[in-house]
Amino acid sequence: MITKMANIIKDGTINLQSAPSIASYASAAGKKEGEGPLAEYFDYISEDVTLGENSWEKSESKLQQYAFTNALSKGSFSESDMDFLFAGDLLNQCVASGYGARETSIPFFGLFGACSTMAESLSLASIFVDSGAAVNAAAVTSSHFCSAERQFRFPVNYGGQRTPTAQWTATAAGCAIVSPHGAPPYVKAVTVGKIKDMGITDANNMGAAMAEAAHDTISRHLANMGQSIEAFDLILTGDLGKVGSDILIELFQKDDIDISEKHNDCGLMLYDLEKQDVHAGGSGCGCSASVLCGYILPEIAKGNLKNVLFAATGALMSPTIVQQGESIPGISHAVHISAF
Amino acid sequence: MITKMANIIKDGTINLQSAPSIASYASAAGKKEGEGPLAEYFDYISEDVTLGENSWEKSESKLQQYAFTNALSKGSFSESDMDFLFAGDLLNQCVASGYGARETSIPFFGLFGACSTMAESLSLASIFVDSGAAVNAAAVTSSHFCSAERQFRFPVNYGGQRTPTAQWTATAAGCAIVSPHGAPPYVKAVTVGKIKDMGITDANNMGAAMAEAAHDTISRHLANMGQSIEAFDLILTGDLGKVGSDILIELFQKDDIDISEKHNDCGLMLYDLEKQDVHAGGSGCGCSASVLCGYILPEIAKGNLKNVLFAATGALMSPTIVQQGESIPGISHAVHISAF
Repeated sequence: MITKMANIIKDGTINLQSAPSIASYASAAGKKEGEGPLAEYFDYISEDVTLGENSWEKSESKLQQYAFTNALSKGSFSESDMDFLFAGDLLNQCVASGYGARETSIPFFGLFGACSTMAESLSLASIFVDSGAAVNAAAVTSSHFCSAERQFRFPVNYGGQRTPTAQWTATAAGCAIVSPHGAPPYVKAVTVGKIKDMGITDANNMGAAMAEAAHDTISRHLANMGQSIEAFDLILTGDLGKVGSDILIELFQKDDIDISEKHNDCGLMLYDLEKQDVHAGGSGCGCSASVLCGYILPEIAKGNLKNVLFAATGALMSPTIVQQGESIPGISHAVHISAF
Repeated sequence: MITKMANIIKDGTINLQSAPSIASYASAAGKKEGEGPLAEYFDYISEDVTLGENSWEKSESKLQQYAFTNALSKGSFSESDMDFLFAGDLLNQCVASGYGARETSIPFFGLFGACSTMAESLSLASIFVDSGAAVNAAAVTSSHFCSAERQFRFPVNYGGQRTPTAQWTATAAGCAIVSPHGAPPYVKAVTVGKIKDMGITDANNMGAAMAEAAHDTISRHLANMGQSIEAFDLILTGDLGKVGSDILIELFQKDDIDISEKHNDCGLMLYDLEKQDVHAGGSGCGCSASVLCGYILPEIAKGNLKNVLFAATGALMSPTIVQQGESIPGISHAVHISAF
């Protein structure tokens, strides 16, 4: 038995007493994302959206492979150093991950957390390393604008008009490798999401559908850890976009907490909302994955950010069930990442 | 830090030194499954395939809810006793699980392992309990013939003819609750699957696509644990069906191992293949889940089975990527469940 000191605190929060290290990380981005404000931080930017593949699904798999192999090489890891790979994506049956990992020989856990998958996979990798169930574990996820548009909305060549609340699915991927010791960033604690439903039935307004999930998870994390928002330099959601972020700030205002100074959202950081025509902001598993692994983790490693609560959000609907009139449940998983 | 005694042995195998208990379990089955050879073992059998719902997706969610709430009540647990819920299914964006768990307030990990999800979720729940990351954790999964047929093949009212190698997606669900102590069955070890691709491109021959994954995982489990097949009363795959089971036996014959006396397959156990017109056997997350939680776990608890290696298998393809000509990768996760 590993322990008698249960490290679950309560209500979904797990304290990682060893504070495992995110020993390496890498990001891969599409052309549009490579023209945005975070362009200089990405390890790889593709010249076009195909990445030389003949289907969007395969292009997305390739993005995930680039993020993973870059994270390995940046950390001087070989594939055989990875005990487990935690991966997921938005596509039906998570094929970007399954086909992306097909070339590897790493024991594989497939996940589905919609756009929250980077936080879900990083949580599981960190829990495994902290508990000794793994020495090294990798967390990887991706999304692709064209594969997502065809699957969730319309094929891109249909040229459908987008609503003002719609978000732009990022063509991007990120990978983080968790190890027992080493340099910062460190994973201090995680809070696992509960499914929350605000009754939103518009699949083009997913930020609103996910805001309550982020509010619940961030609030539980603070309460369970006995922390206030002052413990963090940055409370980073992903991907609520403009609409969902405004709702999140309002939800905290009702609790007499002004989160606005501490809060940012990966969907607002990846693109220039004024110039890049992405309407309410970015979304997709790859949005928070690339912002975290491209920009945030290096900033923590350098000490420019001390404590970040990374609370990725996902909308757990399918087109089929939205057509049946069901509302859209959201989920958010939070990971406390620290420079010490 | 929970431990310095890393409990990963090697190559995907984790030894659960505390041998957590599967403290409760329940199964739910559809009408056809309730007319098969295991009928008397199911906790719930629906009178029709709709379960009173107006869509197949909602019917499937309800099956999952029945399995979960039955497992809670059979174990005298309340919902608040569950630290985490690990759930997944075959549907696009895993909506049977997301909408099934929406009514609960349990921290939720969404998984995608196709038909291997019962073993994936049970593995994660067991690792969490063994490591102290959870006190109690639930693993639940489901499938539904009509939701799967429409999504992967044809709507049922189209009346498409099925090929001889096709398997029948079970309308069924299962739930297992893992706790630190208590009565048998106990989870002794898990071996996490690697993605294996045999080059099969026929989505109606998934047993063949998954056989190598089962062979790899079972072989690794035996090698990593220093065991032979004699350590087990039963090596239970799910769901290779007739075609995949024959291939699995051949693959082991090449290793000079005769697995035929020890082996059975959930897809061969759930239905009467002669009388129930299911062609090569059952499949779907709910097939191995209902066979495990309905029949196998009670047999272990009674001591009629001493050691079972439960190796559920999944085919990680989507209709989209099969239409693109890609072959079908398989995965298999193995869980050693014991009476002592």
